[in-house]
Amino acid sequence: MHLLTTNSEISLSIFQESLTGWCDVVEDIERNKHENAIWYLIAHWAVRAQHIFHLFISATSFCKDRYAIKISTLHYQENSHSERRERTICDSVLLFFTATMADEVTLLDFWASPFGIRVRIALAEKGVKYEYSEQNLRDKSALLLQMNPVYKKIPTLIHNGRSVCESLIIVQYVDDAWKGKAPLLPSDPYQRAQSRFWADFIDKKVFEITKKIWTTKGEELEGAKKDFIECLKLLEGELGDKPYYGGENLGYVDVAFVPFYCWFYAYETCGSFSIEAECPKIIAWAKRCMQKESVSRSLEDPKKVYEFVLELRKRFGVD
Amino acid sequence: MHLLTTNSEISLSIFQESLTGWCDVVEDIERNKHENAIWYLIAHWAVRAQHIFHLFISATSFCKDRYAIKISTLHYQENSHSERRERTICDSVLLFFTATMADEVTLLDFWASPFGIRVRIALAEKGVKYEYSEQNLRDKSALLLQMNPVYKKIPTLIHNGRSVCESLIIVQYVDDAWKGKAPLLPSDPYQRAQSRFWADFIDKKVFEITKKIWTTKGEELEGAKKDFIECLKLLEGELGDKPYYGGENLGYVDVAFVPFYCWFYAYETCGSFSIEAECPKIIAWAKRCMQKESVSRSLEDPKKVYEFVLELRKRFGVD
Repeated sequence: MHLLTTNSEISLSIFQESLTGWCDVVEDIERNKHENAIWYLIAHWAVRAQHIFHLFISATSFCKDRYAIKISTLHYQENSHSERRERTICDSVLLFFTATMADEVTLLDFWASPFGIRVRIALAEKGVKYEYSEQNLRDKSALLLQMNPVYKKIPTLIHNGRSVCESLIIVQYVDDAWKGKAPLLPSDPYQRAQSRFWADFIDKKVFEITKKIWTTKGEELEGAKKDFIECLKLLEGELGDKPYYGGENLGYVDVAFVPFYCWFYAYETCGSFSIEAECPKIIAWAKRCMQKESVSRSLEDPKKVYEFVLELRKRFGVD
Repeated sequence: MHLLTTNSEISLSIFQESLTGWCDVVEDIERNKHENAIWYLIAHWAVRAQHIFHLFISATSFCKDRYAIKISTLHYQENSHSERRERTICDSVLLFFTATMADEVTLLDFWASPFGIRVRIALAEKGVKYEYSEQNLRDKSALLLQMNPVYKKIPTLIHNGRSVCESLIIVQYVDDAWKGKAPLLPSDPYQRAQSRFWADFIDKKVFEITKKIWTTKGEELEGAKKDFIECLKLLEGELGDKPYYGGENLGYVDVAFVPFYCWFYAYETCGSFSIEAECPKIIAWAKRCMQKESVSRSLEDPKKVYEFVLELRKRFGVD
């Protein structure tokens, strides 16, 4: 309750005097996206307006507790008249801090989705805490429709009220937004492009082909199995002798591809074939990935996925 | 011919003495991707091995003239025996310099491709000089098959012998590899994600829908026109009141979208409708983009594109 109790101590004259300059600073921060905006503010404003600096600190601790906006609303109700200017300042401060300092992360997801699992692994790799919100894909929530109005699909990541959609774009966003820990994309431009190429290849090929394995029969199924093995051989070639696609560490392509591993049992059982017999290096790689907690905790039980696939087959009229 | 003529002056003993350390340096450079590797090398080696430093300078100027490998081959043929070690060093030097210093850029493309035009705009924005290689898509060249073995499609960019495929991945690569000038993607992680989302949306929607406009008739054509306008309305919404999708400057989404502008006349003529009447803001934006030389020089004449579309319609049996 620091913001409220110390408020009376804050000199309004300093606020008024600083208003124009302060707005300039906020604008500058928004324009230039300073990464360590708090230090920028301190450097520019601590001396000229010590009280504002204290307010920042209060606002920061409040935002971290996620109550900042609620409390500021209370505060506005309690005040009146000339405090309007102060309100404008508080608004900027709070808006700014909720946007940059607080990390409110929600993942709209569906348990069996390999695309959703990608995001779960990426967030786990970065050590980001988040709220997991399971979605009913046959009766989509208002939140999903609002946050992903173009595709209305999971996964959708909500970070401080703003949504990011499409799994590979989300994984890149997670890598960008939490830069410090466990980089997923390589720093070399060419290697980045190669990683993007293979992740995109997985997106374009693996899901469509594997869907055919559990939704078709006869010749079409045989064709799909052949196409899938061809796909995997290309991916084996790209892996080469590296432990992960990311080299020594789990990277973007690993995150894009390994979620399909918990679907392999369903493919193999529906298609009566062994992936390991055809592509042993892929299985060895997947098992290596599974040794990582970020992966093993994010992937689902293959038998549970298979049961889900059997349900889908009934729904699609395959069986 | 500096490398050859000064070769006799280079003390082999210095080479031999420096060999191990030099290999470490090359490894370090490769591992850490030093951007200004030449300065790194100079700082580390100029004092300890002045002759090697002179060799670097020679190698650099040779690489710039693109003759390095040829000349070094000649050089190997002329030498024998204990010069094998020197050869190892030369190999590293030359391989290293061809990889980092020389910018040999070739674009395998097809004139009317909106995907190819994206890359042409990106390269023009960055001021990168390149060789344009028009491809016959009905009789693909050995180079295209070799450089894009997975999709065998244009555009394919070849940069110092290494290929990058898929237009949006190429544009991101160009932005990454020539970082200094005209940034295409915003620096803020959220804005980057939004840019990627809309460029991906254009990839997923615009081409498929617009293809239907010039390949179908009757109800299907009417449906495609409706879908296309819906798409454009979403894109109008995303543009808002900004001059470009990139804000004040041409950015990634502009580069992804504006190539379709030279196809608009064909869509409108085949579909008997006016895009400007439905989405005036999109047309105003496209005209703004056309004021940029990078765009106007890369886009093709709409009437020529229309004639090409008429040919395709005949080939596809639409007319």
